[in-house]
Amino acid sequence: MVQSVQRAIRILRQLATDGPRLGVTELADRMGLAKPTVHALLRTLESEGLVSRDSEGSKYRLGPDLVAFGNAYLDTHELRSRSLTWADLLATRTKEAVWVGILTGNRILVVHHAFRPRGTGQILEVGATIPWNTNALGKAIVAASVPALGKELLAGELPALTGASITDPAVLARQLDEAARAGYAIEDQESTIGDGAVAAPIFDRSGQVAGAIGIVGPVERLLAEPTWQELAVAVREVARNLSRELGARRGSAIHLQS
Amino acid sequence: MVQSVQRAIRILRQLATDGPRLGVTELADRMGLAKPTVHALLRTLESEGLVSRDSEGSKYRLGPDLVAFGNAYLDTHELRSRSLTWADLLATRTKEAVWVGILTGNRILVVHHAFRPRGTGQILEVGATIPWNTNALGKAIVAASVPALGKELLAGELPALTGASITDPAVLARQLDEAARAGYAIEDQESTIGDGAVAAPIFDRSGQVAGAIGIVGPVERLLAEPTWQELAVAVREVARNLSRELGARRGSAIHLQS
Repeated sequence: MVQSVQRAIRILRQLATDGPRLGVTELADRMGLAKPTVHALLRTLESEGLVSRDSEGSKYRLGPDLVAFGNAYLDTHELRSRSLTWADLLATRTKEAVWVGILTGNRILVVHHAFRPRGTGQILEVGATIPWNTNALGKAIVAASVPALGKELLAGELPALTGASITDPAVLARQLDEAARAGYAIEDQESTIGDGAVAAPIFDRSGQVAGAIGIVGPVERLLAEPTWQELAVAVREVARNLSRELGARRGSAIHLQS
Repeated sequence: MVQSVQRAIRILRQLATDGPRLGVTELADRMGLAKPTVHALLRTLESEGLVSRDSEGSKYRLGPDLVAFGNAYLDTHELRSRSLTWADLLATRTKEAVWVGILTGNRILVVHHAFRPRGTGQILEVGATIPWNTNALGKAIVAASVPALGKELLAGELPALTGASITDPAVLARQLDEAARAGYAIEDQESTIGDGAVAAPIFDRSGQVAGAIGIVGPVERLLAEPTWQELAVAVREVARNLSRELGARRGSAIHLQS
């Protein structure tokens, strides 16, 4: 490991989480590093566009080139590019918003968001990250992954976003078992109050889980009987077609968590 | 400058521009560095989520955490957050798509994109970067900046995106003068064939240009007489209100380029 690179990335994380604008002294204090060290790292990051200084010149914030890098990641992401048409199709068919997500660490990164047709006031969620345990995408991915990953994640942090978020590992484990059997996972206001979701896992040519695709919308519409079963079937079917397009063989293994 | 950090960022740039998947040897060759050096940098970037390896394990690509950093940049960007409501208003009023951009280096970074109301098949452009000289946002920003910046940019690279892109510094200088006088800039298929745009600069509390806001749409609609003057007035008015919300004083200086 190259220490100065690790430190430079820690600076970016501080700026991303702790606050948009920090001075050299604040950063040095929080990171337990000497001021000249932090200053040299900041100057380097600034010259590369990864951090920028405010107009007064004393506070640092994240830089615009990070957006370009993030965009380059999304543009070259095979699951994302292949999911565009399928997500549109699913949104049109179900008349709901569609999300495509991948697991990174213990969070779900939304890599594509197809808006609900004819809906207004929707905010694009691409780039947002949410704890895996609080949403259908995360549960669908973990349920379809190797059991060791599920065990590791269930033993880790399980944050809550709403009062309905599930933070009990035993309850989550049961839901993962059910999701593995059904081929889809369900979310009932666990990430956003009022919203439900149904998601199914996507596999790649190696047979591993590449991500998940799901519909998101008001619980009244999404989780109403008997509509939700029809929606689940539509989601699972699109996930299966998308998997096949990624090179997965028919009937890719869904690993049971037990 | 911290050399290893510069090299790590050069690796990210190689992966962003040269191709999504590169091996250690390819990267070392292109960068003129020793393989063990590149390998150590890659391992560090991988452990931090800034690069990831494909399922075969031998090729590297950009990592998902770059999206999270890019998102953190956009979330904490004051111009972007303040422009959301104004962009929606302008889109509703003009029935066209609205872009908000900032100048980074010699390119415009799109930090917000409000879709054309009731339009379908629109692709989100947030995160895209385009040469400053090929679009109304860039011309509006440079026209309102200090003359030294315009001189520097006019002396630099002026790429073309379409046959209508303006690459002659003398013609661009004249357009910048006109934009400075009018308070808005115009684009006639210079970045996308078939599309025109009208954009106006946004100022912050220090009186400096923070970015620009503009409408983008088919030339037949956007640049038709006498509609385009009305559209320009609407764009300029929203830019002025947005500037005031950012703390700019009434009548912020528009620097003439001459």
